[in-house]
Amino acid sequence: MNHTTVGLIGAGRIGRLHAENLVGIPEAHLKMVASPHLDEAWAQALGIPVRSTDVGAVFDDPEIEAVVIAASSDRHVELIRRAVEAGKHIFCEKPVAFEPGPIEEIIALAAGAGVLLQVGYNRRFDPSLVAAHHEIDGGGIGEIHTVRVTSRDPIPPDIDFVRRSGGLFFDFTVHDFDTVRFLSGAEIVELFAVGEVLVDPRIGAAGDIDTAVITLRLSNGALAVIDNSRHAVYGQDQRFEAFGSSGSVAVDNLRATYVTTSKRDGVFSSRLHGSFGDRYREAFVAELSGFLSSVREGRPVAVGAEDALAAVRAAHAAKRSLAENRPIRLDEAMATDTAGEGGIR
Amino acid sequence: MNHTTVGLIGAGRIGRLHAENLVGIPEAHLKMVASPHLDEAWAQALGIPVRSTDVGAVFDDPEIEAVVIAASSDRHVELIRRAVEAGKHIFCEKPVAFEPGPIEEIIALAAGAGVLLQVGYNRRFDPSLVAAHHEIDGGGIGEIHTVRVTSRDPIPPDIDFVRRSGGLFFDFTVHDFDTVRFLSGAEIVELFAVGEVLVDPRIGAAGDIDTAVITLRLSNGALAVIDNSRHAVYGQDQRFEAFGSSGSVAVDNLRATYVTTSKRDGVFSSRLHGSFGDRYREAFVAELSGFLSSVREGRPVAVGAEDALAAVRAAHAAKRSLAENRPIRLDEAMATDTAGEGGIR
Amino acid sequence: MNHTTVGLIGAGRIGRLHAENLVGIPEAHLKMVASPHLDEAWAQALGIPVRSTDVGAVFDDPEIEAVVIAASSDRHVELIRRAVEAGKHIFCEKPVAFEPGPIEEIIALAAGAGVLLQVGYNRRFDPSLVAAHHEIDGGGIGEIHTVRVTSRDPIPPDIDFVRRSGGLFFDFTVHDFDTVRFLSGAEIVELFAVGEVLVDPRIGAAGDIDTAVITLRLSNGALAVIDNSRHAVYGQDQRFEAFGSSGSVAVDNLRATYVTTSKRDGVFSSRLHGSFGDRYREAFVAELSGFLSSVREGRPVAVGAEDALAAVRAAHAAKRSLAENRPIRLDEAMATDTAGEGGIR
Amino acid sequence: MNHTTVGLIGAGRIGRLHAENLVGIPEAHLKMVASPHLDEAWAQALGIPVRSTDVGAVFDDPEIEAVVIAASSDRHVELIRRAVEAGKHIFCEKPVAFEPGPIEEIIALAAGAGVLLQVGYNRRFDPSLVAAHHEIDGGGIGEIHTVRVTSRDPIPPDIDFVRRSGGLFFDFTVHDFDTVRFLSGAEIVELFAVGEVLVDPRIGAAGDIDTAVITLRLSNGALAVIDNSRHAVYGQDQRFEAFGSSGSVAVDNLRATYVTTSKRDGVFSSRLHGSFGDRYREAFVAELSGFLSSVREGRPVAVGAEDALAAVRAAHAAKRSLAENRPIRLDEAMATDTAGEGGIR
Repeated sequence: MNHTTVGLIGAGRIGRLHAENLVGIPEAHLKMVASPHLDEAWAQALGIPVRSTDVGAVFDDPEIEAVVIAASSDRHVELIRRAVEAGKHIFCEKPVAFEPGPIEEIIALAAGAGVLLQVGYNRRFDPSLVAAHHEIDGGGIGEIHTVRVTSRDPIPPDIDFVRRSGGLFFDFTVHDFDTVRFLSGAEIVELFAVGEVLVDPRIGAAGDIDTAVITLRLSNGALAVIDNSRHAVYGQDQRFEAFGSSGSVAVDNLRATYVTTSKRDGVFSSRLHGSFGDRYREAFVAELSGFLSSVREGRPVAVGAEDALAAVRAAHAAKRSLAENRPIRLDEAMATDTAGEGGIR
Repeated sequence: MNHTTVGLIGAGRIGRLHAENLVGIPEAHLKMVASPHLDEAWAQALGIPVRSTDVGAVFDDPEIEAVVIAASSDRHVELIRRAVEAGKHIFCEKPVAFEPGPIEEIIALAAGAGVLLQVGYNRRFDPSLVAAHHEIDGGGIGEIHTVRVTSRDPIPPDIDFVRRSGGLFFDFTVHDFDTVRFLSGAEIVELFAVGEVLVDPRIGAAGDIDTAVITLRLSNGALAVIDNSRHAVYGQDQRFEAFGSSGSVAVDNLRATYVTTSKRDGVFSSRLHGSFGDRYREAFVAELSGFLSSVREGRPVAVGAEDALAAVRAAHAAKRSLAENRPIRLDEAMATDTAGEGGIR
Repeated sequence: MNHTTVGLIGAGRIGRLHAENLVGIPEAHLKMVASPHLDEAWAQALGIPVRSTDVGAVFDDPEIEAVVIAASSDRHVELIRRAVEAGKHIFCEKPVAFEPGPIEEIIALAAGAGVLLQVGYNRRFDPSLVAAHHEIDGGGIGEIHTVRVTSRDPIPPDIDFVRRSGGLFFDFTVHDFDTVRFLSGAEIVELFAVGEVLVDPRIGAAGDIDTAVITLRLSNGALAVIDNSRHAVYGQDQRFEAFGSSGSVAVDNLRATYVTTSKRDGVFSSRLHGSFGDRYREAFVAELSGFLSSVREGRPVAVGAEDALAAVRAAHAAKRSLAENRPIRLDEAMATDTAGEGGIR
Repeated sequence: MNHTTVGLIGAGRIGRLHAENLVGIPEAHLKMVASPHLDEAWAQALGIPVRSTDVGAVFDDPEIEAVVIAASSDRHVELIRRAVEAGKHIFCEKPVAFEPGPIEEIIALAAGAGVLLQVGYNRRFDPSLVAAHHEIDGGGIGEIHTVRVTSRDPIPPDIDFVRRSGGLFFDFTVHDFDTVRFLSGAEIVELFAVGEVLVDPRIGAAGDIDTAVITLRLSNGALAVIDNSRHAVYGQDQRFEAFGSSGSVAVDNLRATYVTTSKRDGVFSSRLHGSFGDRYREAFVAELSGFLSSVREGRPVAVGAEDALAAVRAAHAAKRSLAENRPIRLDEAMATDTAGEGGIR
């Protein structure tokens, strides 16, 4: 069996998830995990041969062909740079960065070094979204007229996270901007964003919003609409629809269980998934499998830093649209805006 | 049994529908149908005792307590005036008018004469929408954050109709503006509309659009979004959702049949309803029953000309938003706009 | 318009339902309702021209071409005989009779007189069951392997009704026997019934059961299974499935509304319909329309007394299977059994 | 972290599935895989430290506390005996054996040695079935009246497998017998089976059936019904329902994706899962996690050889019922029957 030797950087929540997925993928050999805060017993139980608290060890090991970066967000660009220098292929969790500049820089670096760079937009590997994409891409719904994305989180983030998250559009809506691009096969040209603080006034005090509706014009002439909330009490709400001249394709919510109870008062179904980890469990495995296939076969990755760049540009436009209460073209958005300074509001 | 004697004006498609519903409502006695183009045999088969080609006959019959107006749209205001003069309670099909002025006038007239005036916004009587409204109104989803309406017609109108319809916002979206108000219990404050001609270029040539997304701000601080299409090949698509601090309530599409066929290729369900008449069949019966209950019991009607007025004002704002590509407040919309002149574009 | 003049016998719950449906069918002219217990005001409000407390009046009126019999069950055979003598086409509510003998007799009588005789097995006109039947009949699921029927009532009948109902198999399961025949296009050859008193011991004291599972062998080699309960607290539960070599076709429950509420605890949908009248509302209209079409066009009825005969024979076999705890062939069932004497147990 | 050292016997399809699941469970340390037909590269890629072609090595390693037996079925009893002798806790794939005798023997052996013995009835760990079980067990549907199981396989087994499988009831329906017991919390008292060869005549030639309906009487007075097919062209069909005095609880099919496509002809959903491995993926992980929890905490296993025994006894009764076309009590079934000799028919 032709397998790829992998090093993992980071062993927080998302790092551990990637580790537990990697050991069960026969095509991957997870040789090393490196993190300043490593839980030795956990890593040992998973059978990871080399454990280090020095992330540099991953870059120094010549056997390691590919690195999975799941460190804290503010180190992503630096770690990508070092991985490129070390000639490793890279899977990096989102966000890569909040500004176009650094993303453009690492795109150029990786291209120059001939290493692959995949970004953790895991939805692109969700079996339902993949099936929807294929249906649309194959002409199943004809010409696209509208795309709808509903994305709501089950639990609002804590306020500390809100402060350093870059704001709703940069932390959360970027996934939806990417999904609109993925499903439509088109670029975002212009958008109009409305947003409110309806979930928690502390989110407003931190300079962010928690509820938004964004209308988009796409390069193929289609319209799109995204609605977001930081707090859906009923669970992870992830619904997608593309509508066109020959029909529509919709991705419905998955459920924690498929049990229906019928009683005197009505019919009860189980809750939606309680976290994105549960909702996108298959996608998290598939994005790593897909990355490793690209590495083994020398194929381009399915979702790269160019996609992160497009989503970040849309987030800047949304931020400005919200501030100015008018539609913003993506090409004008970048002229004057500076992200991350003082949040969305 | 306490029943109400009714006269019907108009025997076109919608008039006949109302007639066939009225004869099966034991609380109604449909005494007369008047229409210049009356099909005698049809009216006789339904057992309607008096048939006339003169609409005035309805106003002259002192036994008739209530009139149902389903004549051609451009005669609605005039017929309402005559009904008010004759002291009849009035159910009038939509649209009442495209301009606020005449609607304000007949509101005042009917109030002055003490007659009831109900408007044919039938969705307000749809069992599913009524149940959703009760859930929301009873606090079931807490404070409302967002309202979503998807409304798509199965067959695009013919171009002649498009020309005299007032345009998508006036003919079609008015129902959705009303539904947003009905579900949210709030007024529309500001809106932003994008629209395109994606279904049929002849609709564009007629000065109208066929695809639209409208974002709304409501008086209770909530956001709403409506998406419309004149042509959903899969049938009458009518979906509604309100999302709030304690959950969400959604009205799903009804189907022509509840049959599921599972085959090698997948699972097939039957088509959605092919017309609004089929989709809202129960609502059409219930709106007349509700009107007649209001008449018998002297209660206010569930949906009046004030509601038509609010929807028409929103349509004017949408038209202007589309023209100027910016959000429009409803209070500024009426300052300068003139409806019906040259359509939406 | 070519319409049919109809007389209705009976104005109880089901009679009134038929009357209110008939007046709204343009092809029907409901000229007379006759019932010893007639509510004059109700009949007048519906605009039925002739009201009589003498059922004979319906047979004496030469204008009346077709009679709808919805009188008390024990008079059905007698009224059918009189209708045949008067040369009227007949729609008769179920049950026609509990014994094969009288049913065979009226089949012969009606055939001899050349009048149509349709039986009120309304499910044969339910849009979903009709669509399922067409799918199966057109070969959509290939050769049939199994048929499943789940039929449960929302409210158990009162004990007086249980006593004179003929028992669960004769009053209730007959519909399911007929549905198995309708969907499979085959005859019931042998069956095995188990039954229990689990809902209400008074039903047992009255000599009946309230819960049953019946396994059937069909003439085309397929198997079928019916499960019944007199009391589903969640509403009218009516589900049907045929499974075959190329797939399956299933009819799911309809709902009172199509509203879904998502909350912290889970997802709630509205109750099923609370009565067969609501569940089969469209079927009740369609069976009369269908009957009147048969009359006007001289076509055979869709469901005749032969179908009632087959269902009654299956009910006799089920009764005997339950008593003897063994499978019973339909051809042996009739040899020794006498229905209606002492109920099922 | 307190983890358990595990040895795996068998590396065929199901053995590899267990291995890939075990390496991703942090509480498990999969130290050894032993199989005469071992794929070294696969095992190495998974990071399993010890690989052996001698199954005895697993029993000889004193570090190994628990064995997972996924060898060929005819070796299950022998391997369980050796594991008991070696003092290892045991997880054994089904079937343990076709005859009650050997199962009773190993139950006694394991109990005597104080080792845990869990059987691979994976459905007991399916999240949906677990949730249904809790709802029923907690009184959510009141007293149970009927249990329904529909279990159909997507692809018929090859004829060689049919010959050595013990027949439909022993290979396939045993899962359903166990599910009826799991959901109802009651024992099977009597059953009546009908069966046919409708899928493939070669299955009949091999002495087996491919389509069956089995009616059961349970020790709590409830009724149950199982329907089986070896070939559902639309995928793995697994539906379960318990109905009782206060309502019903149903487990619906899971789907490969949750995509719905609406077109001119109707609404299309994706296929059901194509294999039990995909359908019960979560259950396969959870049964091993559950077994390892039992080992670590010294708690009884959730599903033991006693459950396999009960299911095998029901299979014997079904075989005899089919042969004699009469209901069979489980206590009489064992008196005369000998399984595995000549198959079901």
